[in-house]
Amino acid sequence: MKLNVFFLLLLILNIGYANEDSTFVKKIYNEALVKGEAYNNLRVLCKDIGARLTGSAEAAMAIEWAENLLESYAFDNVYLQEIKVPHWERGTKEAGWIINAEQKISKLDMLALGGSVGTGGLIEGEVIKVESIEELNQLSDQEVDGKIVFFNRPFDQKMINMFKAYGACVDQRWAGTSEASKKNAKAVVIRSLASNTDGHPHTGSMHYEDGVIQIPGAAISPNDADDLVEWLTKGKVTLRMEMDCKTFADVTSYNVIAEFKGSEDDKIITIGAHLDSWDVGEGAHDDGAGVVQCIEAFRILKKLGYRPNHTLRCVLFMNEENGNFGGKSYAEIAVENSEEHICAIETDRGGFLPMGFDVVGSDEQLEFIREITGDLKPYDLLKFNHGYGGVDIGPLRQYFPTMIQLGLNVNSQAYFDFHHSAADVFETVHQRELALGAAAMGAMLYLMDRNL
Amino acid sequence: MKLNVFFLLLLILNIGYANEDSTFVKKIYNEALVKGEAYNNLRVLCKDIGARLTGSAEAAMAIEWAENLLESYAFDNVYLQEIKVPHWERGTKEAGWIINAEQKISKLDMLALGGSVGTGGLIEGEVIKVESIEELNQLSDQEVDGKIVFFNRPFDQKMINMFKAYGACVDQRWAGTSEASKKNAKAVVIRSLASNTDGHPHTGSMHYEDGVIQIPGAAISPNDADDLVEWLTKGKVTLRMEMDCKTFADVTSYNVIAEFKGSEDDKIITIGAHLDSWDVGEGAHDDGAGVVQCIEAFRILKKLGYRPNHTLRCVLFMNEENGNFGGKSYAEIAVENSEEHICAIETDRGGFLPMGFDVVGSDEQLEFIREITGDLKPYDLLKFNHGYGGVDIGPLRQYFPTMIQLGLNVNSQAYFDFHHSAADVFETVHQRELALGAAAMGAMLYLMDRNL
Repeated sequence: MKLNVFFLLLLILNIGYANEDSTFVKKIYNEALVKGEAYNNLRVLCKDIGARLTGSAEAAMAIEWAENLLESYAFDNVYLQEIKVPHWERGTKEAGWIINAEQKISKLDMLALGGSVGTGGLIEGEVIKVESIEELNQLSDQEVDGKIVFFNRPFDQKMINMFKAYGACVDQRWAGTSEASKKNAKAVVIRSLASNTDGHPHTGSMHYEDGVIQIPGAAISPNDADDLVEWLTKGKVTLRMEMDCKTFADVTSYNVIAEFKGSEDDKIITIGAHLDSWDVGEGAHDDGAGVVQCIEAFRILKKLGYRPNHTLRCVLFMNEENGNFGGKSYAEIAVENSEEHICAIETDRGGFLPMGFDVVGSDEQLEFIREITGDLKPYDLLKFNHGYGGVDIGPLRQYFPTMIQLGLNVNSQAYFDFHHSAADVFETVHQRELALGAAAMGAMLYLMDRNL
Repeated sequence: MKLNVFFLLLLILNIGYANEDSTFVKKIYNEALVKGEAYNNLRVLCKDIGARLTGSAEAAMAIEWAENLLESYAFDNVYLQEIKVPHWERGTKEAGWIINAEQKISKLDMLALGGSVGTGGLIEGEVIKVESIEELNQLSDQEVDGKIVFFNRPFDQKMINMFKAYGACVDQRWAGTSEASKKNAKAVVIRSLASNTDGHPHTGSMHYEDGVIQIPGAAISPNDADDLVEWLTKGKVTLRMEMDCKTFADVTSYNVIAEFKGSEDDKIITIGAHLDSWDVGEGAHDDGAGVVQCIEAFRILKKLGYRPNHTLRCVLFMNEENGNFGGKSYAEIAVENSEEHICAIETDRGGFLPMGFDVVGSDEQLEFIREITGDLKPYDLLKFNHGYGGVDIGPLRQYFPTMIQLGLNVNSQAYFDFHHSAADVFETVHQRELALGAAAMGAMLYLMDRNL
């Protein structure tokens, strides 16, 4: 009998605790949707600063903007974390021309891949099309020698998650140039990694393997790629291209960090996004949206008077796009400082409708996440599965292998229409969807802090 | 022992059946995503025909287009179902002006509400703002007499589902004019029913109660409504308006129907959307998207060689927007013809990312739906709850109370940015999201046919 009363009491307390959570989560959503500041913050970042590639003057301005904004919200501690980052510039010349079998010349929109060398003036070569690195490697060196290799594999439209479709194509951009160089190609162009046909090129990072001759790599739009494919069926096609992009010496830059001090311990829960972007468009979805969502999540918890158990950290990483030295350095400094990281949550998939969180952790940790997120169901956060956390928080896990990492999972259908292109501008972000993502980050941060 | 073998066999058969389902569902999605025709069909409907209000020449052309398209796909039976529908026209004059307390005149974008009478030349009245019909009814008749009543209640941004926010405001548009007329108001304007602030008015249907004096009703944009609110804080505001919209005699029109004959019985499963639209924009999301999704679902099942158990019917309803005589007539004719309807599935919430289906039925029927839709989870169809089926299929249920009705549930965040306005155009529909909706309709139709 006594035992029953005890359990009854426990049950009531438990329900009380759960009700408290659902009430608080509701408050987070109300604030984000009714008095949200994320959308206007994103407008400022996109319109008053714009594209902000690591090492650029704009990146430095974005750091200044972020630090000022975080300080205006009066968090417990706002500081810059110094890091070394690469510095690559697109330059001012960037153009391509196709001469088809009938000697017709067409101009192409072309974007150098990030990290590419320039062409050193106008270069020209016959185009040879391959659908994959494997197909390239089946060609003889003679077949490739002096040619411009065109990697053409498009997204697999059968895939439901566009990040998976991207993942199945990205080797062409990342490694294609090195592989083509090994066979003495003159340059590489790739079909842009886009979810659908469109008329603009999408850039992104590439790398040179040690020891290969560094040849230029560029992206052309999906529409131009389609034209090129058709012309190739009719005979020899020559590509002319000129790019004066260049890598400079590494420079000093910063991750921007704000903290909420824990009331119980110094264990750290990080939420993060990346402040840098590619140098075209405005980095609105990638990852301006994530930046303002993290700031908003922090702002809301503070405004609601939340007193965290653990130390919460909002980290706006530098250099996700071309090197990830922000993420790597953050993890290394965490180890140097003997910090204890128990969780990290990243938002870097665009400001689209949130659908849940990807979980990096054991089966038990996934089960735990599912148990504590029942209060998120009314907000249509229904997907909690094993998956990917994010590029920036990724390096933490090698030092803190039992920590949970979470990646905000959003509607992925339109992300690669904009990704790394001139189309990634503020106007393509929906105010409510952005706010729902900010609320999801805030609510998840709250639930992790309460339950870890 | 024998029994165990029997159960084992049953289990294997069951797994085989389930695998067959998941394989077939995958085929439906592959076809929609890789070789889909919905997007191009929508382009034709929006760009070559455009807005198509019931009773208009464009509506007649849409019927012709739909019949031809369905016949081109060679379904078992394509026919027109004759119905009587209302005929209202916006006319050519439609404008509003605000004169604020400082005598500054500003022009407003204004759209007559569907069904409104005209103003009979330029009219003018002092504006009185209310947030609800309740607030109006608390005013004395004298306070309202001769004034133009401005219903200003906006969407509740705290709501997650924008259809619920719409539902909580729509009484102003539907009944506000009659209520104001009872207090001798001169006319009514409403803040457009939109999910967010924007610069264009959103129309929609209204009705006059029997016996009230029919006064004009119009919508102004949310931005203009905000301005109006501000001006009202500063003093008396006068509104001038002129509209020559008019209701004509009822005309004959048609629902457009295609059938797949059942191989086992004549019980009917209907999928439907509405072919008519408002007379502004292109009716792209509302409900061109639904129309091409239903046609696509049918096309895919036929192309994959599916042989249905029951008779499947694709119904493109006329007159959803201002009367629902398509839906009402379809139900009445079903009864006259002694048809047996077991299920109806509607898509009329825009061509956005599908998230599941709303279920109209008993708890047991909802449980049944959840049981048979496991194969839809990989496609992110995760929401199966009690809810709303749709306006067009709604009337069926009074005659077939045990039938299951399903409404395709989609991301609702942006729908009311476009709804009933000039902004509802083809360019705002995402090709893959539209295709995913078509596949969801096809897969659900298939699963219902297999399991009912």
